[in-house]
Amino acid sequence: MDKILLISTGGTFNKVYNPKNGKLIIDKTSNAVKKIASHWLCEFDMINLIGKDSLEMDNHDRLELLATISQSEYKKIIIIHGTDTMALTAKYLDDAELEKHIILTGAMVPYAINPVEATANLASAFGYLQTLNNNGIYIVMNGVFGSYAKIKKDRKKGKFILA
Amino acid sequence: MDKILLISTGGTFNKVYNPKNGKLIIDKTSNAVKKIASHWLCEFDMINLIGKDSLEMDNHDRLELLATISQSEYKKIIIIHGTDTMALTAKYLDDAELEKHIILTGAMVPYAINPVEATANLASAFGYLQTLNNNGIYIVMNGVFGSYAKIKKDRKKGKFILA
Amino acid sequence: MDKILLISTGGTFNKVYNPKNGKLIIDKTSNAVKKIASHWLCEFDMINLIGKDSLEMDNHDRLELLATISQSEYKKIIIIHGTDTMALTAKYLDDAELEKHIILTGAMVPYAINPVEATANLASAFGYLQTLNNNGIYIVMNGVFGSYAKIKKDRKKGKFILA
Amino acid sequence: MDKILLISTGGTFNKVYNPKNGKLIIDKTSNAVKKIASHWLCEFDMINLIGKDSLEMDNHDRLELLATISQSEYKKIIIIHGTDTMALTAKYLDDAELEKHIILTGAMVPYAINPVEATANLASAFGYLQTLNNNGIYIVMNGVFGSYAKIKKDRKKGKFILA
Repeated sequence: MDKILLISTGGTFNKVYNPKNGKLIIDKTSNAVKKIASHWLCEFDMINLIGKDSLEMDNHDRLELLATISQSEYKKIIIIHGTDTMALTAKYLDDAELEKHIILTGAMVPYAINPVEATANLASAFGYLQTLNNNGIYIVMNGVFGSYAKIKKDRKKGKFILA
Repeated sequence: MDKILLISTGGTFNKVYNPKNGKLIIDKTSNAVKKIASHWLCEFDMINLIGKDSLEMDNHDRLELLATISQSEYKKIIIIHGTDTMALTAKYLDDAELEKHIILTGAMVPYAINPVEATANLASAFGYLQTLNNNGIYIVMNGVFGSYAKIKKDRKKGKFILA
Repeated sequence: MDKILLISTGGTFNKVYNPKNGKLIIDKTSNAVKKIASHWLCEFDMINLIGKDSLEMDNHDRLELLATISQSEYKKIIIIHGTDTMALTAKYLDDAELEKHIILTGAMVPYAINPVEATANLASAFGYLQTLNNNGIYIVMNGVFGSYAKIKKDRKKGKFILA
Repeated sequence: MDKILLISTGGTFNKVYNPKNGKLIIDKTSNAVKKIASHWLCEFDMINLIGKDSLEMDNHDRLELLATISQSEYKKIIIIHGTDTMALTAKYLDDAELEKHIILTGAMVPYAINPVEATANLASAFGYLQTLNNNGIYIVMNGVFGSYAKIKKDRKKGKFILA
């Protein structure tokens, strides 16, 4: 088993409820990932980066993400990312022609509200990465797997589907 | 994406609490799998079989499982199985030299008590199966993946590890 | 045991997550109350009214609430209400000098995000109402009980306290 | 508000799942009560005593419970107790003619499996005790309240009802 790096950039996956103002905010410490690791009885190598709703990510953020990936020794990387601009970041990373296997995943529902979808997305990405043979940028969401170019967010259905 | 068949045989994964007698019993309808599908926003082809704690499985049960797999059109199969005799069933299926990709998974904690580990095990098996190239019997549990012969239940640690 | 009427007016108690737009919205059917009843193994007489975040309630809404209470045969009533204007509605109802025992309760955290506080607030109000002897408007939140005039929302602490 | 003492004696309320042997065991530290306090944003004065399934309680245990109550300065006490012999312990305490207000409560489903019923039982007992005027031994379970002699566990329905 190759080692895998998790880069948690925020997104719905990491949102938590703030009772003082009634809003959902990004948990920049990615405690959701730590909880999954503790219940799943395994460990992740993880770094927290950006910490934003993906609608608020800009190209400065994407450059920071790209630089982190480029400089990393890890060949296999999972990025936890907001769903709204996941496709945009995937394209941005693809343009860099990295010699790595990179999966973007995230969640439609915050782990803190219901852990099942977030856990399933992350764990299925983790499984998919074990056997993936080709460099590239992939998306794994809602039980669909493949090159980022083939998977789209269907806003009406509220989930990702094969395009 | 190839179609995947889920065979749910019971096990801790499917245990639920019965308030009338205070005991954990196997839910033979595998409602846990249906809940994962509904939260994960995807569908599974599933059949329920045996419906036992794996300590109570006998070779009659294993023969029924083998017959079901042999006669199935699916080449990719995930078996939800109790953890105590998962290795035994894996060996039994391996002896049959099936031309299929078969993953056994399960849970140390019932989905009904905490859904994260059960969900992560099933989803990671689902991801692993996407790109698996060789026939064989595999175990996927607690973030470890591989041929059944290399993965063991560590009773002291209460999880599966690479042997 | 006297019969108790529950009037659910919305509030944080009844908020649910909408994955399509990432927002928390009021569940006007008060499914949270039905879930509490089903797990607690008891029944509630309930009516849904207004269905708003209490910041959006106006005196038209409060009049509708008052009219419903006045015309009701129930002497003992629990109102599930948003926390931000709970004090305002309590004062409004108090001015009407109703010959009833009325408790306002709600939640700082939606039942759908974590059920414990919402359940505890409602259940403790339910218990308090059993033995309450005097007409009046009461607030029951976060383990404090008493006349509405003595209990305040402490926005910094994010909970209700005795004033 | 008078101060209330919680005596946690174990029972289903406090059972947790042990993944190493697949059994439900009593958490003698009553972590469930601490979690309710933390989510409900209030504090409890609590002592842990006995720590048993109520089927395993004997008169030695009941004497220990009685001695603790007799010597306590608290006039208002909630006892978290297993459901199977709750009636027996209530009668035992009643025979001692204590000048106190004592409520027995518990749960049909462990807090660790689903927190709603356990939370609702404890919180409703807490509310009921606020304004209770007469010395005596009471049971509060599943939305019914009253003298212990009038409330029975209905084993077929799996809940407590007014007798």
